Amino acid sequence: MSFRLTILGTSSALPTSDRYPTAHVLNVHERLFLIDCGEGTQMQMRRYKIRFGRINHIFISHLHGDHFFGLYPLLSTFNLMGRKTPLHLYAPAPADELIARHLKDFDINLAYGLEVHTISGKSVRHLLDDKRLDVYSFPLKHRVKSYGFLFREKMADRNIIREEIAGHNLSISEIGRLKKGEDITREGGEVILCNEVTVMAHQPVSYAFCSDTGWFPKLSSYVRGVDLLYHEATFGDDNEELAMKTGHSTARQAAAVARDAGVGRLILGHFSARYRSPAMLEEEARQVFPLSEAAREGSIYDIS
Amino acid sequence: MSFRLTILGTSSALPTSDRYPTAHVLNVHERLFLIDCGEGTQMQMRRYKIRFGRINHIFISHLHGDHFFGLYPLLSTFNLMGRKTPLHLYAPAPADELIARHLKDFDINLAYGLEVHTISGKSVRHLLDDKRLDVYSFPLKHRVKSYGFLFREKMADRNIIREEIAGHNLSISEIGRLKKGEDITREGGEVILCNEVTVMAHQPVSYAFCSDTGWFPKLSSYVRGVDLLYHEATFGDDNEELAMKTGHSTARQAAAVARDAGVGRLILGHFSARYRSPAMLEEEARQVFPLSEAAREGSIYDIS
Repeated sequence: MSFRLTILGTSSALPTSDRYPTAHVLNVHERLFLIDCGEGTQMQMRRYKIRFGRINHIFISHLHGDHFFGLYPLLSTFNLMGRKTPLHLYAPAPADELIARHLKDFDINLAYGLEVHTISGKSVRHLLDDKRLDVYSFPLKHRVKSYGFLFREKMADRNIIREEIAGHNLSISEIGRLKKGEDITREGGEVILCNEVTVMAHQPVSYAFCSDTGWFPKLSSYVRGVDLLYHEATFGDDNEELAMKTGHSTARQAAAVARDAGVGRLILGHFSARYRSPAMLEEEARQVFPLSEAAREGSIYDIS
Repeated sequence: MSFRLTILGTSSALPTSDRYPTAHVLNVHERLFLIDCGEGTQMQMRRYKIRFGRINHIFISHLHGDHFFGLYPLLSTFNLMGRKTPLHLYAPAPADELIARHLKDFDINLAYGLEVHTISGKSVRHLLDDKRLDVYSFPLKHRVKSYGFLFREKMADRNIIREEIAGHNLSISEIGRLKKGEDITREGGEVILCNEVTVMAHQPVSYAFCSDTGWFPKLSSYVRGVDLLYHEATFGDDNEELAMKTGHSTARQAAAVARDAGVGRLILGHFSARYRSPAMLEEEARQVFPLSEAAREGSIYDIS
């Protein structure tokens, strides 16, 4: 059982020698979800031992190069590696057109199916109903259409307590209902409480990704109560005006979202190249929300 | 005075965690020439302290992603860094169309001039007549139009030997002609030999870049006598057939070109990801041409 986030890039538009553009990999029970795909993502994936074959879903927050330029090479690499499994890509328009044209321009015939799902709308949308996970998009506030993502583990079935069911002679249907959290009332009036014979497997966990965005009041409600929140923090207090002008956030604003949303932990990223180290940004965030941390390339956050 | 090559990438189409796709930077007297631009080139430029502002010319051998995918991000980075100096790009068609469309798609307005020069033809072409350098393209043999490049330092003016010119009372025009290597015959019949009063500054040096190509007989004549030859060596002897089929060379074939051309030194690169280390390729090349070396990321070859 895992619910683990690996950070592959923490730079904003100008990468540095050790800060790559945005890319995150979420591992949910060994199914991998790639979130944004800046230049060099595939090299970072190799560096941090991300298994290419386990990625079937890629989410692109918006069509700025530092979140997208690693995608074309990655699609080619999947092809060269002999991929056959369909790949699902979620991105705002016109990603579908751009990719189709790119493949044509470079005469690339993908041997696997590539399904591009267009993200749109001004409200929360349900993007993916996976076996163990739901994924939702929500609108952000940037210079171009930009979306955040909420990854929420599905509620797992309750576990049966073997020693408690011995005398009940449960049917398969009764077991199924108990595992879903229902109580059973039998014909003779006997009641079997679900919490008598089952126990909750584990609390479902959640991760929200807030890509490039300026602060807006509604944002914290989209990510309310998540266990782990990533929020961009391109600038510090020293560049609050620039943040507003460019559709970005300061570390302090990111922390305010985390605080207002009551999240478990906050990860900061997308740092401007003007900050040699993100230590100051981390410090400013912690003044508002103590459980804030500046991400680094290769950082792993395990919330399983 | 410098004529120095830095290798930024040595992988073929599939990069690994420590092998980046093709990109070389040639420093000719502090003017930098970028040759090919695979994904991650700008990160490698930062890692190896390449000064972005000194690059005014970029040469792209062919339009395969592993030689090209770093270009779009680099063009954006130049823009974000406030570049104003025009940039000259040399590439086969339809690079000009692709780039124009890309800039439009991503709504990027370059604040600097970008002049795309289309490389074409089935013979040697003179691409650039720079102050200190001539650059030529020559055709290679690959699955798509692919070109090699020859960088040849111009012959420098000869240096005047101060103590020798004292009695001659030379005019400015005479000095100019002597520096170019001419002898002077004056009206009275007096001859001033150029080698009497001048000395050769230094021997001009040259570098040739043979990107993706299968072996063909004419190739060695294009690079005859260069001081430094880069030649792709995607495969070893164990994959000679695959090399032929995919329009690539083995290390041994690269070395044969170096030997037949009588070059000074050979650098190998563009290694297939199937070779964990290029040591075997280097060994196979050395059997044919002893001064062969497998390039590594960050390798510097100084031939000034």
